[in-house]
Amino acid sequence: MQALKDKIMQEGKVLPGSVLKVDAFLNHQIDPVLMKEIGETFAKKFANQGINKIVTIESSGIAPAVMTGLNMGVPVIFARKSKSLTLKDHLYSTSVYSYTKQTTSEISVSKDFLGKDDVVLLLDDFLANGQALYGLIDIVNQAGAKLAGAGIVIEKGFQDGGKKLRQQGIRIESLATIASLQDGKITFSESGAN
Amino acid sequence: MQALKDKIMQEGKVLPGSVLKVDAFLNHQIDPVLMKEIGETFAKKFANQGINKIVTIESSGIAPAVMTGLNMGVPVIFARKSKSLTLKDHLYSTSVYSYTKQTTSEISVSKDFLGKDDVVLLLDDFLANGQALYGLIDIVNQAGAKLAGAGIVIEKGFQDGGKKLRQQGIRIESLATIASLQDGKITFSESGAN
Repeated sequence: MQALKDKIMQEGKVLPGSVLKVDAFLNHQIDPVLMKEIGETFAKKFANQGINKIVTIESSGIAPAVMTGLNMGVPVIFARKSKSLTLKDHLYSTSVYSYTKQTTSEISVSKDFLGKDDVVLLLDDFLANGQALYGLIDIVNQAGAKLAGAGIVIEKGFQDGGKKLRQQGIRIESLATIASLQDGKITFSESGAN
Repeated sequence: MQALKDKIMQEGKVLPGSVLKVDAFLNHQIDPVLMKEIGETFAKKFANQGINKIVTIESSGIAPAVMTGLNMGVPVIFARKSKSLTLKDHLYSTSVYSYTKQTTSEISVSKDFLGKDDVVLLLDDFLANGQALYGLIDIVNQAGAKLAGAGIVIEKGFQDGGKKLRQQGIRIESLATIASLQDGKITFSESGAN
């Protein structure tokens, strides 16, 4: 998605440790017009799949997910993060390890909103090692729902999360795939529909 | 806003302790079409005020804030919550006490995105005792920015946060004001433009 790549080149910052900081338009400050275009793009990519629910994780997945939900005409559920769940009743929950923060969070979704008749599109801002997506897939499986695929705003193609998940047959559509952040320079992968 | 009130009546649940649970369309599962209408409504209410930034708090404020930002053509910043801030450099930060959770969180906004030339609309899902809004107002003041007002999706009119803030001259527009949740029955206030 060219508008997204342009924005990453203009406003993204490369920090030590292969961190791409996109606080200016996605993770802290949000550009609503770009989010709208992202939503339209995901809605086209995942049209005609019978998707009736979008599931993301708080907080940075919410804006692109809501815009996608608006375009697809389906509700959005955001999985909640908590350090320890006191109330596990009536929840699907699983653990997600964050390599960046080196902490494990519990994420959870209420059983009220996800079940075996649902066809789910997962949505997230970043895909690197895939831990967050594995967590969301676990929740979809616990619900007995069908997984249609995952929409990712920015994939770090030099980390292996996307590769492993695709090898398991999971459809992943990333709007911008970073091939490298070496020497502070952002290089996009030209493969696929990016 | 009638569509919001209808949704609250249809899908809101009253829990002990004057808790109104709106997990079905605002706080966990999100109705994107309703969020779009909410965004349009706030954009009309706060038109022609010179607003160039919307500030909210993760996570439940993000969806209505992004839809409002889209309609007003301005970026949205979500203040981040964290238990303790290790990196306070280059951040506006303040403490917010949650009566519901009985915990104090630090919330913070990067100095990169807010400064003395900004005119800010605050946006949040709920207003009860006003602690979250006081925190956001503190951040706006630290930045030296101008506060245009606050847009609230649901105000608990039987708690005094809104009253106190209005007495300080702060403009608050709530789309639905709850007069009472007594005996599990939701009653709206008929005052104002609700």
